[in-house]
Amino acid sequence: MWSKNPLTKMLDIQLPIIQAPMAGGATTPELVAAVSNAGGLGSLGAAYMTPQNMAITIQKIRQLTDKPFAVNLFVPGKPHANDQQVAAMCAILAQEFSELDIPATPMPASSLQVIPFAEQLAVVIEEKVPVFSFTFGIPDAADLAKLRENNTIIIGTATNLAEGKQLEQAGVDMVVAQGYEAGGHRGTFARPVEDAYIGSFALIPQLVDHLSIPVVAAGAIMDGRSIVAALALGAAGVQLGTAFLTCSESGIHPTYKQRLLDTQEEHTTLTRLFTGRAARAMKNTFIQRMAAYEHAVLDFPLQNFLTRPVRMAAEQQNNTEFMSLYSGQGAHLCQALSATQLIEKLQTEVEAILKNHRFIA
Amino acid sequence: MWSKNPLTKMLDIQLPIIQAPMAGGATTPELVAAVSNAGGLGSLGAAYMTPQNMAITIQKIRQLTDKPFAVNLFVPGKPHANDQQVAAMCAILAQEFSELDIPATPMPASSLQVIPFAEQLAVVIEEKVPVFSFTFGIPDAADLAKLRENNTIIIGTATNLAEGKQLEQAGVDMVVAQGYEAGGHRGTFARPVEDAYIGSFALIPQLVDHLSIPVVAAGAIMDGRSIVAALALGAAGVQLGTAFLTCSESGIHPTYKQRLLDTQEEHTTLTRLFTGRAARAMKNTFIQRMAAYEHAVLDFPLQNFLTRPVRMAAEQQNNTEFMSLYSGQGAHLCQALSATQLIEKLQTEVEAILKNHRFIA
Repeated sequence: MWSKNPLTKMLDIQLPIIQAPMAGGATTPELVAAVSNAGGLGSLGAAYMTPQNMAITIQKIRQLTDKPFAVNLFVPGKPHANDQQVAAMCAILAQEFSELDIPATPMPASSLQVIPFAEQLAVVIEEKVPVFSFTFGIPDAADLAKLRENNTIIIGTATNLAEGKQLEQAGVDMVVAQGYEAGGHRGTFARPVEDAYIGSFALIPQLVDHLSIPVVAAGAIMDGRSIVAALALGAAGVQLGTAFLTCSESGIHPTYKQRLLDTQEEHTTLTRLFTGRAARAMKNTFIQRMAAYEHAVLDFPLQNFLTRPVRMAAEQQNNTEFMSLYSGQGAHLCQALSATQLIEKLQTEVEAILKNHRFIA
Repeated sequence: MWSKNPLTKMLDIQLPIIQAPMAGGATTPELVAAVSNAGGLGSLGAAYMTPQNMAITIQKIRQLTDKPFAVNLFVPGKPHANDQQVAAMCAILAQEFSELDIPATPMPASSLQVIPFAEQLAVVIEEKVPVFSFTFGIPDAADLAKLRENNTIIIGTATNLAEGKQLEQAGVDMVVAQGYEAGGHRGTFARPVEDAYIGSFALIPQLVDHLSIPVVAAGAIMDGRSIVAALALGAAGVQLGTAFLTCSESGIHPTYKQRLLDTQEEHTTLTRLFTGRAARAMKNTFIQRMAAYEHAVLDFPLQNFLTRPVRMAAEQQNNTEFMSLYSGQGAHLCQALSATQLIEKLQTEVEAILKNHRFIA
């Protein structure tokens, strides 16, 4: 059925379905491999991993599947913070540290971790991963050239047309159209982030009409209906994140998984409070309480470093009110399935909709 | 093709395509009648009209078509403003008044116009209009009962699930799912408006899954692709606003029409500055300059009354920088067609996509 699809052909996979890379532990080797083994493309969200851990994890994935898979990184900016700004954010977070019994340690700006992107990318190149996807920007031309020498397929992320054009010009093989509905970090890099809140109904056709490379729809893709809708809008395939978060292989905290499964109604918001970059998450106490301090948020990923102890303590205490509950706007459709079952369900639903023309009453 | 569609059956029309009601002059009798004559449902955006003018306009529509059409009203809230708040906004607007040579007149709060909703609704009932649609809330049960006695089909507007449920409970016949992508005013009434920015990929399935009445998709529906996508997501039909703004019968200012036709890339934003309620419009000088004064915006429709002279002068001076350039996020697909041609084009595109399965490569 998908043999002429540009995405399946280019990626050498069976179904035009990508499991979204989600940094922070969701994308276990088991999840990535299960998706790839089921005919989709699994993606390792490696942005927060050490280069050493990346290499080990990639090898684990390769033990679990011989199918193509993707590794995803964040193309970092240049974060700045002085000691005063760091101290101010620490003071703001003091209430959470106290409530969650986290020992507060003095934190000079120079000690804050940044993303070791060059070393991470070196692992991607060294390991000759089949597919490399990225967000937050565009890697240097020299790096992209090295990836191409390895025959690595390259996937960029666009939240608006300007980004799509820049990515195409940089020579990426396909572009993920990250709609406003999408969970987790906004990939925006060519505009102020709040100027790129474009719903998928507008973003997908805009990219499809102006780019010649395949466009992958992302944002509230949860079932066969949304896959068919994305394809109808011109996407070559889809990327699903939230739908995979509740799969049995997903590495997120069980209480976070349960909150996704319990979702009846859309209750997400965009916030910079967790990491310094706008990201969509389910509302909780942390977001509500910190909303007044958006102005004091440090650059990505410095803010992430300061708030991480809160999330780690929250996970130890099974307290979802202080976790980062990243989620797209379609979470009410989350199901407790294995990744294999989810892929089979998606395939069955898509085929049923198309064969029965159920939507033309 | 659409004979079993719940929307076409209920509305007694040929195609599940509604031309969105757009208050402020876009929906001329010629536009409304052309859409209805072409097999869709034309809608008169009557919210800002006097009851007298409404009655005259409805009669004009009836001279131009014997097909069903809709009349749309805003269900008003209870606006409050004191003289001090009005004076503050007048002072903020002084720069625009000066630049556009508008004589500033002293304006006590008591002189600000509100929406004569009861009298407007009386006209809808008196005229026994075939279809009544509304937004910003829900009319009283007694009013809805009178409409039902006339066999008027009733359409509400929801931007989130809570509103959809309230509307179904109130007995409306169908619900417009107004996605985040949609142009013009947000219809939100059951939540703070910024808590109901839900993209159509998430909103449509959420309403479809929880309501038993037909759901009409609105927001960046511009061509056959987006119609098929909306139907795939479970919508019974679609409502298009921006796509009709550039039709020859549309009553918007020629320079506004040209800006829509010239749109290459999404450049809209949500703002309360024009009327006091959040609405999506193309960015221009007025929005950018006034952005700092969101806190001083008066309740709808008082703000509208104060800013209207700016827009009227801007229209006289062909200056789009001070008009309210309402637009959805899909404006790059606007075309200069007659409404009849647009409907024919939509129908042809939908049929071609469905027959050829063009989206399953």
